[in-house]
Order: sequence, then structure tokens, then C-alpha cells
Amino acid sequence: MNFLQKLNRAIETNNSFLCVGLDPDYSKLPSHLKNLQYPLFEFNKQIIDSTHDLVCGYKPNSAFYEAWGHEGIYQLKLTFDYLHQKYPHIPTILDAKRADIGNTNLGYIQFAFEYLGVDSITLNPYLGKEAMQPFLSYKNRGLFFLCKSSNPGSGEFQDITIGERKLYQIIAQQVSQNWNQNNNCLLVVGATYPRELADIRQLLPNMTFLIPGVGSQGGDIQQTVNAAKNSDGKGFIINSSRNIIFASNEKDFAQAARQRAIEVRDSINSCL
Amino acid sequence: MNFLQKLNRAIETNNSFLCVGLDPDYSKLPSHLKNLQYPLFEFNKQIIDSTHDLVCGYKPNSAFYEAWGHEGIYQLKLTFDYLHQKYPHIPTILDAKRADIGNTNLGYIQFAFEYLGVDSITLNPYLGKEAMQPFLSYKNRGLFFLCKSSNPGSGEFQDITIGERKLYQIIAQQVSQNWNQNNNCLLVVGATYPRELADIRQLLPNMTFLIPGVGSQGGDIQQTVNAAKNSDGKGFIINSSRNIIFASNEKDFAQAARQRAIEVRDSINSCL
Repeated sequence: MNFLQKLNRAIETNNSFLCVGLDPDYSKLPSHLKNLQYPLFEFNKQIIDSTHDLVCGYKPNSAFYEAWGHEGIYQLKLTFDYLHQKYPHIPTILDAKRADIGNTNLGYIQFAFEYLGVDSITLNPYLGKEAMQPFLSYKNRGLFFLCKSSNPGSGEFQDITIGERKLYQIIAQQVSQNWNQNNNCLLVVGATYPRELADIRQLLPNMTFLIPGVGSQGGDIQQTVNAAKNSDGKGFIINSSRNIIFASNEKDFAQAARQRAIEVRDSINSCL
Repeated sequence: MNFLQKLNRAIETNNSFLCVGLDPDYSKLPSHLKNLQYPLFEFNKQIIDSTHDLVCGYKPNSAFYEAWGHEGIYQLKLTFDYLHQKYPHIPTILDAKRADIGNTNLGYIQFAFEYLGVDSITLNPYLGKEAMQPFLSYKNRGLFFLCKSSNPGSGEFQDITIGERKLYQIIAQQVSQNWNQNNNCLLVVGATYPRELADIRQLLPNMTFLIPGVGSQGGDIQQTVNAAKNSDGKGFIINSSRNIIFASNEKDFAQAARQRAIEVRDSINSCL
């Protein structure tokens, strides 16, 4: 089973297009967890247990773990080990936005696909296909390439016009048409840019998008779903992090996250 | 003292434009080190002790450490701690090619500038200045932005022509003219592209370049120095990794690395 099959099966099983970002900013953790040996992992575990039937994926962002050095990386591993053992049908995404040249990528591959054992990873396309070949050859893992990012200033380079196209469109087309021999490439497109999202959907009717930027960053769910869905009403997942995992910072945080996840899942489904 | 001052002082003190890449590919380590508790660190320590008077910087690439998970990250920390304590005048570069949006970068900043305590880091510019602002505001750390990378396929996006300029030139200009308020930005340009290196030097007489790609990747030192030097015969550092650190994989590896480092340092200096 390749990554897209696993992802689509999870979407169907849980009737959910919601991916939860496991970004445990230490300063926002409930105070009763802060003094545990593995606070990031303990927080994640309770969020996972309370939302696993509501999501189509979990996406920890590496930065929140690297911040704590080797101890943080160990908690990232504990998180993925827990997910893979207890909920093996839920796809995992390492949000790491990595890219290096040629064989140096083998180190990142060993980190992501062997040490952490993730199903998929986010990557930065700037170095080109030839550099990313070690990733592209992994047929059964998903590769999410940054295309149009959700930040307010993403247009500085991504919106540069070349002939009749913008750079993010050129990257979307190259990834879709020339990098995707193994059907393992996906694209990251921010919910904060519904027009660009619609552009890319029109250009690429069959690609699957990871869409961050709803909730705290301000992306609108109805606009996002309208722009992102393919002709089957599929082809996307929507990530939400802070809005869900920090719904409460009291002892009820996991239950509050569950309630918020239900709301967001249903809100997405109601737009379809 | 900002990063550029520290770098220029180290160049003068050691009369060297050579940066050594500490990329301890485990499969290439001398066999007598492989069973130690911290093989990557022990290897690095001996390379550092035998070359510290010949270099203007050390650049560990994070991928070679992440490959070993939290234990690798700990050895990366041991390496930087050793450098900062024993050779505090030698600039350190974390080659991580990181980039994320806004506050997520704070995690990478905590990893690089606090946990590891590095003097500088390599970054990917694709997300734009607004995303990289948390890094840009660190006045006393160096930020090396990827511009024209050394890999054979780097032209796929970097050489796209926009009007009369190529994307790598636009990025070089933006970083130099609009991102560099704190005089903490530098550029990464591959030795495998001497014409492009000369283009960027002409465009930006005052920027400093980190130049990988000599040695194993095939970049020529004479061509590189001719293309890279500014009007003072400065403004660049040349990185070499495998060619130096794996000069021998026997017990004499550190001495062999010293000999190779002398050759490369002298070879660069003889071109000036």
C-alpha cells in the first residue's frame, strides 16, 4: 500500500479530512504536564488518544522538538512510535521542510523513514529534482513539497511571474509531471491563499494537497474546501494545530481538543 | 563582535579561507572508532585538534547526525561544545538548510543558537523574508542563505529566467539589499558554477560567500577563487568535507586530514 492509498483509506474510515498538527509549544502546555520527564510526548499521547477516530493524519513539526535538543528528538520518536504501534492505520507526516544535495539527503531519510519510521515528510523543492532523487525513489512514503506557503510574505519569490506563470505554479507542475513517477508526491498549499489554491487545482486535477493555515492563521474553511476539492470532492487534507491542541490549557485539554476536532472535522465535511 | 567580524578575524589569524565540513558518514569512519560510545564526536574531535590552526571555520551538516536520531544529535552537541570551549575564536556553521514560517522558526533558533550555540546556520530562502524574520533579527549570528547550490540539477528552478535575471540572482539581490539590515546575511554559492559565482560577485561586491563543491564534487579552486574574490581578495570561504576528513580511514586519519587541509589551504592562498 503506498502513502496515498493509506491516506485515502484513513479519510474514508474516519470520515475526516482533518490532520492534527502535533506542535507542542512548551510554553502553552497545561502546567500539570510541564514537570513530567517527557512533557511533549505525554501531551501528544493524550491528544492522540482523544482524537484518533476524528482525523486522517498527524503532523508533528520537527522544530518544536529540536528546540529541546536530543531530549526533544527522543520525545518526537516516542510520539511516532506510539502512533505507529497503537494507531497504525493513521498516516503520519514529519513536518521538517528538509532538502539537501544528493547523498546528504540519505541522512535525513535515515532520520525520517528509519529512526522515526514516518509515513511521509514535508520537503523544500528549491534544490531541484536531481537533489531530491534519494527521497523520490522511496515508493511507499509520501513526499509533500512546499508549493505556495501559508505565510503572509510567501509571495516574495513564490509569486514571481515567469512568462504567464508564477513560480509556485511552475513548481507545482514540475513536481506533478516530472517528479512523480512513483506517485508519491503531494503539494503543500496554504489555506490563506484560496485563489492560488484554486489555480493549482485547476492546473492539476489529480494532485493531493496538504493545506495548513486555517484556524489561527486565518484561512476560511468554506473557501478552502471550494478551492481545493477535486471532481470527486477529495484530493486534500486540512491541517490544524494550535486551534485544536491548545483548545484548553487546563486538565481537560484532551477533551477540549476532541470537541474542537469534531467541530473542525464537521465544518469541513459540511462544505462538501 | 558580529559573525562577519569573527569570520574575517579567523581568516586572518589562520591565513586560511578553508572551512572544513564535519560530515562524519559512519560507513567511512576508521574502524577503530566505530565501536566507541560516541564515534561521530570522537572522529570530529581528532579532526578538529589536528586542523584548528589551518581553517577559518567548521561546518557540520546536520543530516549526518540526525541519521542517528537523538544519539546523533547529542554527538552534534558534543562537537559544537568542544569547538566553542576549546577553540572559541573559530566560527561554527550549522549546515541545516532550515526554513519554516514565522514563529515555528523559533524552535530551530532554540536548537541552533541556544542548545548547540552555533555562530551561524545555513537557511533556505524559498519562504521569503517575512518568514525568516525571527532569524534575521539575530544580529550577532551569521545566516547563510542558499542561492546557487552546487548540485548538478540546481538549475531546475534556480536558473529560471525572469526578465533579464535568473532566480538565483533575484534571491541574491533580495537577501543582500532587503534582508541584510543587520549585516548578518551571507550567501551559499557552489564552486561547480564559477560563471554564476562571478555573476553574483559582480552584482554584489560586498557580500561574503560560503562555497561548497570543490574536491569530491569537482569544483576547481583556481576558477573558484578568481570568480569569488572581492576587490580586496576576500569575501569568501571555501568548504571541503570528504576530501579532507576522509583523506585516510586508518589510524592516521587525523594526520592525513591535516596534510590535506594544508594542501587545500595553500592551494587557495596561491590563487590570490
